[in-house]
Amino acid sequence: MNDSSPAPEEFGGLGIVVPQRITLDAPLLLDCGRTLAQHELMVETYGRLNADRSNAILICHALSGDHHAAGFHAAGDRKPGWWDNCIGPGRPIDTDRFFVVCLNNLGGCRGSTGPGTINPDSGKHWGPDFPIVTVRDWVRSQALLADHLGIRQWAAGIGGSLGGMQIMQWAIDLPERIRHAIVIAAAPKLSAQNIAFNEIARQAILSDPEFHDGHFYEHGTVPSRGLKLARMLGHITYLSDEAMRAKFGRVLRGGHMQFNYEVEFEVESYLRYQGQQFVDRFDANTYLLMTKALDYFDPARDYSDDLVAALSHASARFFVLAFEADWRFSPERSREIVQALVAAGKNVSYALIESQLGHDDFLMPLPEYHQLLRAYLNRVALEVGA
Amino acid sequence: MNDSSPAPEEFGGLGIVVPQRITLDAPLLLDCGRTLAQHELMVETYGRLNADRSNAILICHALSGDHHAAGFHAAGDRKPGWWDNCIGPGRPIDTDRFFVVCLNNLGGCRGSTGPGTINPDSGKHWGPDFPIVTVRDWVRSQALLADHLGIRQWAAGIGGSLGGMQIMQWAIDLPERIRHAIVIAAAPKLSAQNIAFNEIARQAILSDPEFHDGHFYEHGTVPSRGLKLARMLGHITYLSDEAMRAKFGRVLRGGHMQFNYEVEFEVESYLRYQGQQFVDRFDANTYLLMTKALDYFDPARDYSDDLVAALSHASARFFVLAFEADWRFSPERSREIVQALVAAGKNVSYALIESQLGHDDFLMPLPEYHQLLRAYLNRVALEVGA
Repeated sequence: MNDSSPAPEEFGGLGIVVPQRITLDAPLLLDCGRTLAQHELMVETYGRLNADRSNAILICHALSGDHHAAGFHAAGDRKPGWWDNCIGPGRPIDTDRFFVVCLNNLGGCRGSTGPGTINPDSGKHWGPDFPIVTVRDWVRSQALLADHLGIRQWAAGIGGSLGGMQIMQWAIDLPERIRHAIVIAAAPKLSAQNIAFNEIARQAILSDPEFHDGHFYEHGTVPSRGLKLARMLGHITYLSDEAMRAKFGRVLRGGHMQFNYEVEFEVESYLRYQGQQFVDRFDANTYLLMTKALDYFDPARDYSDDLVAALSHASARFFVLAFEADWRFSPERSREIVQALVAAGKNVSYALIESQLGHDDFLMPLPEYHQLLRAYLNRVALEVGA
Repeated sequence: MNDSSPAPEEFGGLGIVVPQRITLDAPLLLDCGRTLAQHELMVETYGRLNADRSNAILICHALSGDHHAAGFHAAGDRKPGWWDNCIGPGRPIDTDRFFVVCLNNLGGCRGSTGPGTINPDSGKHWGPDFPIVTVRDWVRSQALLADHLGIRQWAAGIGGSLGGMQIMQWAIDLPERIRHAIVIAAAPKLSAQNIAFNEIARQAILSDPEFHDGHFYEHGTVPSRGLKLARMLGHITYLSDEAMRAKFGRVLRGGHMQFNYEVEFEVESYLRYQGQQFVDRFDANTYLLMTKALDYFDPARDYSDDLVAALSHASARFFVLAFEADWRFSPERSREIVQALVAAGKNVSYALIESQLGHDDFLMPLPEYHQLLRAYLNRVALEVGA
């Protein structure tokens, strides 16, 4: 870090935050039928838990997220946590009022027990032997974490995309433990097209010769080609056609056709860069497992495919947000959730945010979006005396 | 063929058709600056050229198409040509009135000169040394074919998707040689999102270890993993979200979660099957080259990015058709063509066809679609005395 650069704290956020590794010793029975005797989760917390432990907010991450939601890990870090624009003192998720908890999910690759950690039974990497976990499993694991932290009920659970699905599942499976469910840019289940994108991503990884049936750790390699393709494909679904047009257009590097397969259009350069960055930070087995958790998510399945019946168990108040430009989980998908909640007689607010970027808008500091979150969470804070 | 099966002729189509290999000896200067001294095209023709050679229709194929547009090659064939439902005696493109010409484009992999044929200079497969051709190059090649067949002016040129782009280019580059331009499910140029999909398909092929920098022929292998992924990805863009939902839903094979990465959802089975089929019939170098021709297509580029100026050169009458459910080249993209034609003072008809399937609708026998084509081509036939 250059000595004249401002310290991260000067930007008004959380400054330096310290992740902790928490071991949960209670056995965890998974949907697949297997049991984990214990597991570890990487966790970050921001703000202070109040005396009656009523001001805790759970943040659930999406496909490629982790526990590092806000602040910096070190003074020299180029980037803060993935939702730093929304979490911090005076920010919409206000750490002066709330105790905010974010974790790397079970099966993740940022330190929580997952395919890339060591299986105590074998002394080797779990790799493909790590169980495929579901959103329900994550809720169970997160409930053990809440127990560990002494949190009986979350003031609110908040998540975007796959994170929003976890919040829905919390409200259905453990209704008494979540007061408000804030579900952002999500869907009640994946469409066949959503599954199709995930399947191609998985096939790219599975068919990479460096994948070695998931045992690539022992071969000292990574299926970088497959993982790169998977991430490039993901990026197409995170941006709207319009946003790509505005961002990249059809600009040719050098201004003329090259007649080869090198990077030529700006969008190609962007995708290759994003793909390569991802390979350097993400685990292929975790990517497979996360996409499968997405595909499996379908809380209505346990209730004869009746989403209204599933949501009738919830006692949380809901705030559902969608983004105009999002075509991965379009506003129509959020409205399916809202309509089922209305039909189940639940308390629900819905906001459709004007946006341009696409699915990724849920990570952006759009003024309307942040004002709505701020106003909603202000009421939550007053309720719990925070 | 089972002896009791009806012969293809009994279905009312063209019956058995015979492709021909035509050698074009005139030098062909390509956009990349290289010249092919001669080239061969695989061609099928249906119907009879009339005495004044005025009733010829050119059919241009899309990304993965070929010269076999209609009829059967042998009595035992399971499937007819790719547009058999539209071409034949009494069909919308009526071979009782028109002389229909369809070819496998230069660079293709169904017999025309391309990466998989032998380079006469080296005695080896062209492979990656085959020039990247453009839509303009195809029009030049097709014009040589028209010369060879003695056709001064096409009564109409018809094409869907990339085929429609070739028809637009004909109308701009050789206006006196095309009387009607029927442009179906096309766009004036690819969007950044369209290019992004193509780029991922190319990266899947280029990064396959079996690709061998395009020299896989000499290695006795094919980059099947990459080509399969590319095709799977293409299929996502050929079907609407709605169509996938209707066709596959979220049906789980066996009715429950398997907790592995085998085929589980119906849409996965479909995509893997389509991908595998494609590997068995298509050349990876051709796929690269075809996607690049798509990306490069931009007739306005030669006219200071002014599509109106580009189209002001056309003298053909235009019929532009789009499909409601098409999100690859949506109706908005067709309207861009129509608006530019209107601004250029051209004669243009536009039809938006009610549809469900998606981009693939242009290959379907939708009654409204075929009726409109039939009515339009009936007027064309009357004009040319066919």
